[in-house]
Amino acid sequence: MRTLFTAELSELADDLIAMSQHVESAISRASEALLTENVELAQKVIADDAKLDDLEQTVDERCVLLIAQQQPVGLDLRTLVASLRISAGLERMGDLAQHIAEAARRSYPESAIPTSHREIFEGMTAAAKQTAAEVVELMQTRDLNVAARIVSDDDLLDDLHSQAYGSLLAEGYTGNTQETLDIALMSRYFERFGDHAVNVSRRIVYLVTGDHTGDRASI
Amino acid sequence: MRTLFTAELSELADDLIAMSQHVESAISRASEALLTENVELAQKVIADDAKLDDLEQTVDERCVLLIAQQQPVGLDLRTLVASLRISAGLERMGDLAQHIAEAARRSYPESAIPTSHREIFEGMTAAAKQTAAEVVELMQTRDLNVAARIVSDDDLLDDLHSQAYGSLLAEGYTGNTQETLDIALMSRYFERFGDHAVNVSRRIVYLVTGDHTGDRASI
Repeated sequence: MRTLFTAELSELADDLIAMSQHVESAISRASEALLTENVELAQKVIADDAKLDDLEQTVDERCVLLIAQQQPVGLDLRTLVASLRISAGLERMGDLAQHIAEAARRSYPESAIPTSHREIFEGMTAAAKQTAAEVVELMQTRDLNVAARIVSDDDLLDDLHSQAYGSLLAEGYTGNTQETLDIALMSRYFERFGDHAVNVSRRIVYLVTGDHTGDRASI
Repeated sequence: MRTLFTAELSELADDLIAMSQHVESAISRASEALLTENVELAQKVIADDAKLDDLEQTVDERCVLLIAQQQPVGLDLRTLVASLRISAGLERMGDLAQHIAEAARRSYPESAIPTSHREIFEGMTAAAKQTAAEVVELMQTRDLNVAARIVSDDDLLDDLHSQAYGSLLAEGYTGNTQETLDIALMSRYFERFGDHAVNVSRRIVYLVTGDHTGDRASI
């Protein structure tokens, strides 16, 4: 029985890795769609989000079934409960990538990013892609150094988000309302993407170390 | 043992009701702070959010402990897993009320709402307060008619959100960037507040009916 449960937990871990890989692909493609006005790619990100939702559903059902069948305690139970949280966080990261793709699609054939803000969004897309790749790595390796890098990338996203907002309110800003809205919302999507990555990584750190200090932010 | 578990589940339900009441209080006060430029009230909403975070932590720990100790199956297990989701949703609704209070505080002594948008935000605050009261009622009564009203209020919030955005992009809109940002973000906070209310209510409907159709949105 125990051997079977180990196999089931391993499948669950694989599903979560698959979800994180889906998120990485979604944010990478949404970023490219945004920076290159590639509407087909944006469309693909939007259409593919349903797959991530399906994966989340699978993970959730698997967790509940395992709790019911195996009645786990200790680390096994902690793993299953954390998996429910992690899947919700990854699903939300996918939604944010989708929102970015929707902004890219809405403004097509124009760019959703005015030239004045291109550099900030190049920084944001790079940081978000790196964060997503680190979440995959953390899922695969459980290496706590990777978790620290996710926090550091989130700090960078927070800084860029502040810069983007500051620029909108600075003297001499002349963007129109659509540009202002696009910049404000997309900047917030990237910032929230980083927040969710940090929350997911804290859940994993908790599994590895048993320490959930700071693991209070909502997912 | 079974009697004790029933008592524990009842305490858990009470904690969730307490969380929903906290959310109702937070959105009511944030709304009043916003409409009346009451900075002390805004400050109170912001300071009190930590209590909701504590309640969420209590609920989560209670759920995990009950799963471990009681090894529940069937409806009991479903209740515990749903409770984890509901507490996360309520905590997020509290965050959104806090964000609205922060916007009210930031613009003080000016209103964060320009006169042109006062009517829309009066509608939004009313719908959000009603939604929050209905979530409390649903928690207490499990009356599915209340769940239907939550969905209908969410539709109203979605409509008002669309109106707010449409107005920003309409010919003749002359607001400055700060006003544009305040309207866009607060409108989104109210819209998300309604989304989370619907998700929470779907979790409860699922507990009552076993049907989780449409319960795919992230929390």
